[in-house]
Amino acid sequence: MDKKKSLVVIAAHTGDYVWRCAGAIALHAELGWRVSVICLSYGERGEAAKLFAEPGMTQPRAREMRKIEAEKAAKVLGADIHFFDGDDYCLHTDEAMLDRAVAILRDLQADVILTHTRDDPGNIDHEVAARFALEARMSSQAVGRSGGTAIGAPHLHGMTIGAPQVYSFEPHQSELCSFKPDTLLDITSVWEKKWAAIQCIPSQPLMWDYYRNMAIQRGAVARGRPKYAEAFQRLFPSTVNELPT
Amino acid sequence: MDKKKSLVVIAAHTGDYVWRCAGAIALHAELGWRVSVICLSYGERGEAAKLFAEPGMTQPRAREMRKIEAEKAAKVLGADIHFFDGDDYCLHTDEAMLDRAVAILRDLQADVILTHTRDDPGNIDHEVAARFALEARMSSQAVGRSGGTAIGAPHLHGMTIGAPQVYSFEPHQSELCSFKPDTLLDITSVWEKKWAAIQCIPSQPLMWDYYRNMAIQRGAVARGRPKYAEAFQRLFPSTVNELPT
Amino acid sequence: MDKKKSLVVIAAHTGDYVWRCAGAIALHAELGWRVSVICLSYGERGEAAKLFAEPGMTQPRAREMRKIEAEKAAKVLGADIHFFDGDDYCLHTDEAMLDRAVAILRDLQADVILTHTRDDPGNIDHEVAARFALEARMSSQAVGRSGGTAIGAPHLHGMTIGAPQVYSFEPHQSELCSFKPDTLLDITSVWEKKWAAIQCIPSQPLMWDYYRNMAIQRGAVARGRPKYAEAFQRLFPSTVNELPT
Amino acid sequence: MDKKKSLVVIAAHTGDYVWRCAGAIALHAELGWRVSVICLSYGERGEAAKLFAEPGMTQPRAREMRKIEAEKAAKVLGADIHFFDGDDYCLHTDEAMLDRAVAILRDLQADVILTHTRDDPGNIDHEVAARFALEARMSSQAVGRSGGTAIGAPHLHGMTIGAPQVYSFEPHQSELCSFKPDTLLDITSVWEKKWAAIQCIPSQPLMWDYYRNMAIQRGAVARGRPKYAEAFQRLFPSTVNELPT
Amino acid sequence: MDKKKSLVVIAAHTGDYVWRCAGAIALHAELGWRVSVICLSYGERGEAAKLFAEPGMTQPRAREMRKIEAEKAAKVLGADIHFFDGDDYCLHTDEAMLDRAVAILRDLQADVILTHTRDDPGNIDHEVAARFALEARMSSQAVGRSGGTAIGAPHLHGMTIGAPQVYSFEPHQSELCSFKPDTLLDITSVWEKKWAAIQCIPSQPLMWDYYRNMAIQRGAVARGRPKYAEAFQRLFPSTVNELPT
Amino acid sequence: MDKKKSLVVIAAHTGDYVWRCAGAIALHAELGWRVSVICLSYGERGEAAKLFAEPGMTQPRAREMRKIEAEKAAKVLGADIHFFDGDDYCLHTDEAMLDRAVAILRDLQADVILTHTRDDPGNIDHEVAARFALEARMSSQAVGRSGGTAIGAPHLHGMTIGAPQVYSFEPHQSELCSFKPDTLLDITSVWEKKWAAIQCIPSQPLMWDYYRNMAIQRGAVARGRPKYAEAFQRLFPSTVNELPT
Repeated sequence: MDKKKSLVVIAAHTGDYVWRCAGAIALHAELGWRVSVICLSYGERGEAAKLFAEPGMTQPRAREMRKIEAEKAAKVLGADIHFFDGDDYCLHTDEAMLDRAVAILRDLQADVILTHTRDDPGNIDHEVAARFALEARMSSQAVGRSGGTAIGAPHLHGMTIGAPQVYSFEPHQSELCSFKPDTLLDITSVWEKKWAAIQCIPSQPLMWDYYRNMAIQRGAVARGRPKYAEAFQRLFPSTVNELPT
Repeated sequence: MDKKKSLVVIAAHTGDYVWRCAGAIALHAELGWRVSVICLSYGERGEAAKLFAEPGMTQPRAREMRKIEAEKAAKVLGADIHFFDGDDYCLHTDEAMLDRAVAILRDLQADVILTHTRDDPGNIDHEVAARFALEARMSSQAVGRSGGTAIGAPHLHGMTIGAPQVYSFEPHQSELCSFKPDTLLDITSVWEKKWAAIQCIPSQPLMWDYYRNMAIQRGAVARGRPKYAEAFQRLFPSTVNELPT
Repeated sequence: MDKKKSLVVIAAHTGDYVWRCAGAIALHAELGWRVSVICLSYGERGEAAKLFAEPGMTQPRAREMRKIEAEKAAKVLGADIHFFDGDDYCLHTDEAMLDRAVAILRDLQADVILTHTRDDPGNIDHEVAARFALEARMSSQAVGRSGGTAIGAPHLHGMTIGAPQVYSFEPHQSELCSFKPDTLLDITSVWEKKWAAIQCIPSQPLMWDYYRNMAIQRGAVARGRPKYAEAFQRLFPSTVNELPT
Repeated sequence: MDKKKSLVVIAAHTGDYVWRCAGAIALHAELGWRVSVICLSYGERGEAAKLFAEPGMTQPRAREMRKIEAEKAAKVLGADIHFFDGDDYCLHTDEAMLDRAVAILRDLQADVILTHTRDDPGNIDHEVAARFALEARMSSQAVGRSGGTAIGAPHLHGMTIGAPQVYSFEPHQSELCSFKPDTLLDITSVWEKKWAAIQCIPSQPLMWDYYRNMAIQRGAVARGRPKYAEAFQRLFPSTVNELPT
Repeated sequence: MDKKKSLVVIAAHTGDYVWRCAGAIALHAELGWRVSVICLSYGERGEAAKLFAEPGMTQPRAREMRKIEAEKAAKVLGADIHFFDGDDYCLHTDEAMLDRAVAILRDLQADVILTHTRDDPGNIDHEVAARFALEARMSSQAVGRSGGTAIGAPHLHGMTIGAPQVYSFEPHQSELCSFKPDTLLDITSVWEKKWAAIQCIPSQPLMWDYYRNMAIQRGAVARGRPKYAEAFQRLFPSTVNELPT
Repeated sequence: MDKKKSLVVIAAHTGDYVWRCAGAIALHAELGWRVSVICLSYGERGEAAKLFAEPGMTQPRAREMRKIEAEKAAKVLGADIHFFDGDDYCLHTDEAMLDRAVAILRDLQADVILTHTRDDPGNIDHEVAARFALEARMSSQAVGRSGGTAIGAPHLHGMTIGAPQVYSFEPHQSELCSFKPDTLLDITSVWEKKWAAIQCIPSQPLMWDYYRNMAIQRGAVARGRPKYAEAFQRLFPSTVNELPT
């Protein structure tokens, strides 16, 4: 098939995709995949303390600044980005957001979805986003549900997609979220892009070194000891024709 | 007590109860239990691809056809069936649906509830249904909640029920859903009925052989090697007067 | 800092806090902590069968009686109590309730939150309350979310709080709820207060001995074999300067 | 089949069977089952502190006293008892002990085995005993392994047994041992015998009240609220012809 | 590197590798991998009931027949086979067996090891074999431990190997063994070989259909619905340069 | 009691205690605790590849060098060190080693034991050591088991100890070992000592940065964001008189 492969990231807040899977995004974009990022919220209430330290900051302005940061980072990484305009802390999703996600997943004929872990007691927004990703995935497979431009049952509905693999990306504290990585992605070749994307998010400065160190630590236990790696956990079995070593 | 024992199945889509517990239904009906099936949705969006392959298919028509299929199967098995008219992919439940379920559980004085596993990442509707079943169970026990014809606190409310046992029936991929069967039900004597019920659902032909094979496999590991068995997992301890062998 | 330490209990029904953590409440109140209890519902539908056995009982009256019981118990224990007026069996929470909880957590600058286990298949209200507690906790930390009188980003929002530790208190059947206690609190010195508080809840007489026995059993496995103990499980790692023995 | 049903208990130390399943033993003996208890060790090193408080106590004498206690308790309960003479703290098992266990399981054609949980970090002897029980069970099923008087492949070996159900009995702290009870046995009718058996073990006085309370607590959550119950967890699925309520 | 890739199977009994990974063996042999099978025992005591039904059967003769069966099956599949001559039911491993396994893993510079699940309460031999496989793996990595012909620290010891991936193959009852497959291997192209290998083991006729059905069921849930598949679970993360879809 | 508190580390190889808990050792030594380290083996076979790269290296010489390294590190940290002379890759423990450990635990009246996680599929020696630590702990509590100089039942045996808390220290890959930290120890004040101890182990240079980064990462999620922290998981509940915040 000569369709481009595609990767869709579904994240709760604008920063999440940068810390946790910017390497995967940049790498797959370079490999020729189409990559789209869905930010369910701007995270301006819960993840932008630094912005509110500025005099005169308002919530709308914080949202706008967070959006600009995220757009900049996506551009660096070679991804499209979609803002679903939800409110954070606490995030709620609805039918209209689901429709948008279905359309995106179908338009791209998503092969892989990256999202949060289902368990994250310290950040329920992440749990909401992970569940939303699974709802969007199953809805995209539903022949009788409309949505998306790639029309499949043309007299009626949009084309469905198959069953894309879903990976959890690494949460802030893996063990708290029952995250057990089974896939380490060597991101050394795109590290500079990830670091540049990270620097697009000045509103969360404490994250910078933390996620650089995390990439170094994951690299140190990956085969071949790459300098930087990201960790993922798949939710569904993968089908293979040869056992990966 | 000479009340008939009763079994209530609470499932997300019309097909679910057939693949996963038609044997239990037929067997307990033959044993003299009252059996009622609650279908929270028709599953016409997500589980009826074959219907939408027919020219001119519409969603209302697909619903109707799914309903007819399910009624036919229930009749074969000897069960009542209730349609709660929810939408599938994604299923949402509400207070009115809960009221209906409470009334059914109380009217039948349910002894056993069969439902989905609480975890099912590939099909969130199943998770919604399992949670709904637990909500309905606890609500049926609540003296101060009205509903049902068997009036218990007659000046005010319906009769409550005790704490019926809940079993998860077998999901499509057991390990993905953390399903660990603890009860294997020999359904050999009612296999012909299950097979006939399965054949009432032509809209999902791929399921036929899969669930026949599953019954054979579960039989092969059950005591006495019955030809067909269904697997279940109880959610609550059972109280006994002698240890089951 | 000479701020008083504070403990906030977030429970589904009015009785829950008494059975499960009245000892912790009384003990910390005596130790000089501020203690507040949030009852999300009165539990009058599902946990007051005895009240409905009285002729002429109505739901509003049952609510009122449950409220009075709970206030009395809180007074005995030395805690404030807040009623959030939700309906039980099944409990639903909303944005307004969340706002109230955020304000309380911030006003008290909560150090510790006690709530239900996240899993409780026999009582979904408890799961709802546990999730709500985690939503409230994260929302209280969000600089961009308003609420609470202790103004932090004064030009705009309320003062946030740090990350309070959260403990699950002991559920009715620990193993059903995946409760694995890691902290046993010696409540011998305040047992009389707990027992007095328990006696404030005549609407649930079966609980009295059950929870006294539970306290004895937990004491019997605690270091030093205190006469009474309560069991808790922390959700987040604690930071220490010396390893607890 | 008119063979008597049979129950075999495999426990690490002489006291274990009394605290944890004396009710099951007495009840099944009354129901006409044959019941045999295997004590892998006397537990004189680790579970008889009180004996060593007596002046002049020696290890051989402590063993003897423990043996007498256990025999007395078994007699009260109506069970045979076998001492395998292992050393405790730490217990090690060997091929000869396995041969003896195989012979017993085959001679009785065991239907049910009761043993410790596989996880018990506070008492590794219990883990050793649980593993030994599973080794004995599988060895008893092996046609090509000799042992037992009931000769099956008569030209060569002993008769094998089927696959008896195995239950973990309740450990001292259930949650530490990942014990999740699925079966509550009403032992009210034999409580006096259990209490009498408990009183046969004066060397462990702290256990008496603890296990009485435990029986009361398990009863309080069993269906019908029996006065006393014991909790068990099965290791293998059971095959049934009707779903237990 | 132009070294042939290699796969080493470490199994408790001679039949195990046939039922559980004959497809993987045949497939990788066809793909040009070197494949070696280590049978720790012949399984003649516990897994050859049919042989003992023959008059005059002795244990040495049963061993010999089992060996011949296994050699035949290995030949069909294109694998070397090594017999470690352990006793089954119950299997024990020792230092000499470990030395042999280390030599094989090093000689082949194993890339992948297939073995049992670590948990298998119904067959402790399988647990012993799984643990042995992990011991052999770590020992093969130890520079200071001798063994193997490919000399690495030539003045002293054998060449070590890297960290080969380990997969659990599918146990008889997946859920009992906490087996959660993450890799489905399409074995349709080599099915005839697997079926031929299965037919080499007439001493266990009940397994034939069971494992054919299992392959069909795993195929039905694999991507692309291959006719036959085998399921595996990896124990260690894999390092990748692109996320598997 | 004015007995000094004491900490005993039980580790498989000489390096383990340095990477994983040197901070805890140094900190508690400074706090006035007695600290003893038990190294079950030198780890010269599996964890000293660099030594074997030196021409003329022999196994006895590697052992000696590893011993010297470990002694140096212990001295830096302020701990006693005991070598149990076991062989590594694979480590086996025996009764004599257990006797020595019991004597040490009793002589110090150990309050806290630090050891490996019970699960570590990549390094079975670690599992062996963790199990040994639990065996030693329970044996030390056994009144009827001799050992140790602090005589308790003076006519016969050594003084027993109470039930010391056991913590798992952080394994190389936490998630592979089911390590879920619940305790973060601020080691900033002793970091220089830990770093100095690390530098005493030139035979494993790849570990240096990895464990420095790990300490930084654990610090970043600890309360108060200390510069360096170590993570631990307790195995048994702790008894408290006030809930830790």
